[in-house]
Amino acid sequence: MVMKVLIIGGVAGGATAAARLRRLDESAEIVILERSGYVSYANCGLPYYIGGVIEKKQALTLQTKESFWNRFYIDVRLNNEALSIDRERKTVRVRRLLDGSEYEETYDKLILSPGAKALRPPLPGINSPRIFTLRTVEDTFAIREQIEKTSPKNAVVIGGGFIGLEMAENLIHAGVKTTLLQRGDQVMAPLDYDMACQIHSYLRGRGVDLRLNQTVTGFYEEDGRLYTQLEGREAVGADLAILAIGVAPETHLAKEAGLSLGIRESILVNERMETSDPDIYAVGDAVQVRHFVSGADSLIALAGPANKQGRIAADNICGRDSRFDGSQGSSIIRLFDMTAASTGLNEKAATAAGIPWEAVVTYSASHAAYYPGATDMTVKTLYNPENGRILGAQIVGFDGVDKRIDVLATAIRAGMTGEDLEELDLAYAPPYSSAKDPVNMAGFVIGNIRSGLLKQFNWKDMEELQKQRGEGKITLLDTRTEREYAQGHFQGSVNIPLDELRERLSELDPQKPVYVNCHSGLRSYLACRILTGNGFECYNFSGGYRFYEYIAGDRNYDETPRHACGVEIR
Amino acid sequence: MVMKVLIIGGVAGGATAAARLRRLDESAEIVILERSGYVSYANCGLPYYIGGVIEKKQALTLQTKESFWNRFYIDVRLNNEALSIDRERKTVRVRRLLDGSEYEETYDKLILSPGAKALRPPLPGINSPRIFTLRTVEDTFAIREQIEKTSPKNAVVIGGGFIGLEMAENLIHAGVKTTLLQRGDQVMAPLDYDMACQIHSYLRGRGVDLRLNQTVTGFYEEDGRLYTQLEGREAVGADLAILAIGVAPETHLAKEAGLSLGIRESILVNERMETSDPDIYAVGDAVQVRHFVSGADSLIALAGPANKQGRIAADNICGRDSRFDGSQGSSIIRLFDMTAASTGLNEKAATAAGIPWEAVVTYSASHAAYYPGATDMTVKTLYNPENGRILGAQIVGFDGVDKRIDVLATAIRAGMTGEDLEELDLAYAPPYSSAKDPVNMAGFVIGNIRSGLLKQFNWKDMEELQKQRGEGKITLLDTRTEREYAQGHFQGSVNIPLDELRERLSELDPQKPVYVNCHSGLRSYLACRILTGNGFECYNFSGGYRFYEYIAGDRNYDETPRHACGVEIR
Repeated sequence: MVMKVLIIGGVAGGATAAARLRRLDESAEIVILERSGYVSYANCGLPYYIGGVIEKKQALTLQTKESFWNRFYIDVRLNNEALSIDRERKTVRVRRLLDGSEYEETYDKLILSPGAKALRPPLPGINSPRIFTLRTVEDTFAIREQIEKTSPKNAVVIGGGFIGLEMAENLIHAGVKTTLLQRGDQVMAPLDYDMACQIHSYLRGRGVDLRLNQTVTGFYEEDGRLYTQLEGREAVGADLAILAIGVAPETHLAKEAGLSLGIRESILVNERMETSDPDIYAVGDAVQVRHFVSGADSLIALAGPANKQGRIAADNICGRDSRFDGSQGSSIIRLFDMTAASTGLNEKAATAAGIPWEAVVTYSASHAAYYPGATDMTVKTLYNPENGRILGAQIVGFDGVDKRIDVLATAIRAGMTGEDLEELDLAYAPPYSSAKDPVNMAGFVIGNIRSGLLKQFNWKDMEELQKQRGEGKITLLDTRTEREYAQGHFQGSVNIPLDELRERLSELDPQKPVYVNCHSGLRSYLACRILTGNGFECYNFSGGYRFYEYIAGDRNYDETPRHACGVEIR
Repeated sequence: MVMKVLIIGGVAGGATAAARLRRLDESAEIVILERSGYVSYANCGLPYYIGGVIEKKQALTLQTKESFWNRFYIDVRLNNEALSIDRERKTVRVRRLLDGSEYEETYDKLILSPGAKALRPPLPGINSPRIFTLRTVEDTFAIREQIEKTSPKNAVVIGGGFIGLEMAENLIHAGVKTTLLQRGDQVMAPLDYDMACQIHSYLRGRGVDLRLNQTVTGFYEEDGRLYTQLEGREAVGADLAILAIGVAPETHLAKEAGLSLGIRESILVNERMETSDPDIYAVGDAVQVRHFVSGADSLIALAGPANKQGRIAADNICGRDSRFDGSQGSSIIRLFDMTAASTGLNEKAATAAGIPWEAVVTYSASHAAYYPGATDMTVKTLYNPENGRILGAQIVGFDGVDKRIDVLATAIRAGMTGEDLEELDLAYAPPYSSAKDPVNMAGFVIGNIRSGLLKQFNWKDMEELQKQRGEGKITLLDTRTEREYAQGHFQGSVNIPLDELRERLSELDPQKPVYVNCHSGLRSYLACRILTGNGFECYNFSGGYRFYEYIAGDRNYDETPRHACGVEIR
C-alpha cells in the first residue's frame, strides 16, 4: 500500500524531510504545502540579497516546485496554506491563497514544519508600511524593492540578534545609514555581555549607530518619515524600519489540533520527532528540543538542527529508528569582516541550568604570527570545575573563528574536558594555525587552573578589588611595558614590566595578594608563576587589559558615534 | 636543592620544555644546548622566507638567546653541540662550535630534543654545493642567498613531502622554474594515491614540472649546471637542487649513551616521555610514539606533538604526572591556493595495522553555494565497518579544508563513529558552511552504507567491471546530463540523466546489476535509491566521475606539461 505523507512547510526541515522520504520510499505519495510562493529557499541568505552581497534573485531560490517534481516526484503546492488539522479523519484543510478556494487533503503521516514567525508586538503605529520584518523571500524582495524605489537615507533596525545584525550590515552595504536599537545592554544573546562588548565597538567603528538599552514604545509617521518612539529618549526618525526582535514558534495549527505543547507554545516532540499524535511529526523552529549540554527544554531556531530533524522524522516514518539527540545551539555570524560564534552554554544558561561553571578567556592568533595575515581572536570557554567538562564556548575575531568554534562544538558533543582539549591533535602549518592551536591554549589554561597552577580573577571583581586596594589590602600589578601602561591601566596599579619582575620583586609587599594583568593574559600568567615561585599569593586577570577595555569602553559609551576603546570605568 | 635541567636542542620540543619548566619551577637551573645559531625559530616557516611570502628575517627568529634569558632565566647556548652523554656521572660533553673548545656540563635531568636530520644518501656527486637541504635557519639563508646571488633560472626539488612541496611552491614564487622529482607514484605520503592525484593536476596547472616514478641515481656538474641523474631517463639540468627526501631521527647521542632505541633508531620513551634512563627524557621528531588510532609504533615528525611532548616532559620532571596519549599525525599544507590535509590512518596505514576499513569520498562546497566565494573540497573518510569508528580523513580543496580536518581530528580523538558525525552540531551561516556541513555529509554517507541504504564501488573496481560489462553481465549507468556525458564518460556507460530516470527505467535490464556514476556522487546516489526502489541491484560510484578524472588523468600523464584532466584510462 502506498503511504501518503503530507508536509506543512517547505523550507529547511520540511524540504529535507520530503527529499529523505523519497530516497527511503520510492512509492510514497509526498505532498508539501507551502504558504509562501517559494520552496526550500535560502532563508539564511535573505539579508545578503538586500545588501547586494548575493546579487541574483535566483541564488535564493535554486529549488523550485518543478525541480522537486522532476527529481523527487514530490508535489509542492506553493501559496497553499494549511488551515486546520482533523486528526480523527487524518485530513488537513487547505486554502489556495491565490484564489481563496479551499480543499481537504488526506494523509497517512503528517509532518509539521511551520517554522517560527517574526514577533510583531501590538505597539502603536506598528502597521506602518515602512516597518518590515524578514522571514520569507517575499519579505526580502519587498525590502529590497523599497530600497530601490525610495533610496532611503537612513534606517532603523530594531533588535540585535542574528537577523537584526545581518540587516544592519546589509543596509550599510546598500548605502543606508543605519541605527540599531537594542533593548538590553548587548547584542547577540548567545554571547555573554563581556564578549559582546568587542562587537559593539566594532559595529560602531564600521558606522553602525548602535544604541543599547532602548525600549521601543511605538511608531508614528510625519513628513514622510517614520519615527520610532523610545522610552525616555527622543524618537528616531528614519525612512524605514526593520523589526527583528525575535521569533515565536508558529504553532496555532498544532495547538488547535490539540497536540501537546511545550515552552512558549512550541510543539512537543519526542526524540523521534513524533508529536503526541503518533501519525504527526514536527520539526524545525516550531518544536521544543532538549539542550544537548544542559538537558533543558529549549527553543533553538537554527537551520542545522531543522535539517537534521527533518531527516530523522523521515527515517522514523519509513521504519528506521532514528533519534535527535538534542541541540547545542552552535551558531555563527559574519559582521563585515568580523566573525562571532558560540556553542553550548553561556554564563546565563549554565547558571539557569544549575550547572557549576567557570570560564577562561584566551587570546590567540588565527595562525602563526610570523606568517602574513594573522588576526587575533578572543576565546571564552566555559567548563564545569567539578569534572572539567567543556560546557560552552564563544569566540569573537576574524579568520579562523569558524574553525575553532566547530572544534569546540565537536569536543562538547564528545563530552571532552579541558584536559582533553590540551591533547587535541590538530593540523598545523603556518597559514592555518600555530603548533599550539587556540583550542589547545584554552585547554592549557583550564588545565592550569584545575591543577592549581593558576588562580584568576575577572572584570566583575574589579570594583571590589579597587575597594581593597584603597584599603591597602592588595596590590594591583601591571606587567606590560611602560609604554603600554601609559596608554591606560587600572587605577592604582603598579607597573613592573614582566622582564624586570625578578629584579624588582622587592618593590612588592609579600604580605599582600597580588592581582596581575597584562595586555592579553599571557605575560601576567608568567608573572604569576614567578610570583608564586617566590612565595606570593597571586591572581591572573582573565582576558587581559585589552578585554577589559572593550567592556569599560562599552559602559562609558555615550551614544555619540566614536571609537569606544581605551576608556576606563573609573 | 636547586634542580639543574639540561636540554639538548632548542627548537619546538626543547624550547617548549624549557619554558614550561621555568613556569613550574622558579628556582631550577635550565640550560639549552643548541647546535645551530638560533633558538626556538619558526622552523615551519622557513620555506616561506625563501619564496618571499615571509619578508623579514626577524620573523623567523622572534625568540633569541637574550629574550629567553630576560623572560625565563634560561641559559641558551647557541652553537654549542652536545658530543656525548655520560649517564653514570650525569654529564654531557659539549663543543663550542665557534672556537672548537670543549667542556663538560652536569645535569640532574636531561631532555633530548635533537630532532630529525634531512636524509642525504651517499649518491655520486651528492656533495655538490648546488645541492641544498632545508632544516635550519642557516640552511634557509643559504638557499635564499644562493637564489639572490645567482638568480637561478631553474631548480630541481627531489622529494614530494611537505618540505619538497613547499619548496617547489616557494621557488616558483621566487621566479625559479621548478621540476619536482618524486620516487613513487604520488606526492604527500599521508594521502592515498587517489587523493593525491588532484594535487598532481593542480601543481602541474600552477607550473610545477612534476615528474613521478623517478629514481635519482646521482649528480654531476657540467658547464656550471647541476645535472640530476635518473634511472632510465635523461638527466635533468638545473642551477640548484633541493634535496627533501625525508628525515631520520638524529639519535646518535642516545644510541652511544646506550639508551633503548625504537624503530629506525628513534629514541624509545614511555608515555611520560622518559627514556630507558629515568633521568633522561626525550621529545620531538627523534622519539618513537604510539599512533593514537592504530596503536602502532610510529615516527611522526610534526611541530604540534613535539610541543605537547616538551610540555609533558617538563611536567613530569617537576613532579606532575602527565602523559602523552599518542599522535594521530594531523597535518596540513598550503600549495598556492590549494589546501591538502589529513588526520589518522590512510588506506595503507589501516591495512598495515590490520584494522578493517572502508572509505567514503564526498564532495562538498566550503560554504553555502549561494553565498559568494564557495569552493569545493573532496573529503575521504576512512571508518571501521565493524563498529563505525572513524579511522582517518583526508581533504583536498581550498577554503575551509583546515576546519573540516580539525573537526574530524577531534572526532577521531573522541572515538566517534560515522553516525556521530551525522549528529555534530556545527555552526552554520552562509559565509562559513552549509546547514549540512561537509563533515555531516561524510557521516550521512557512512550511515547510509552501514544501514544498508547504499552500496558503492570505486575506481579500483573499474577494470573488473569493464570486463563484466564486456561480457554483458552488468550495466554502467551515467546519470549526468547529456552535455556532461559528452565531455567524457566511462566506456560503454549508458546515459540517462537523473531527472529522466523514472520515465526511462524500461531501458535498463532489471536482471543486471547497475553501476551508477554522476559528477560528484550525489545524483548517482539519488539514482541508486530510485533503482533500488524499483527492484534493481545497484552500486554508487564513490567520489563521482570528477574524482576519477584526476586519477585517470594522472595515469595517462606523459610528462609533457599540460592540464591532465578529462583523460580516460581506456
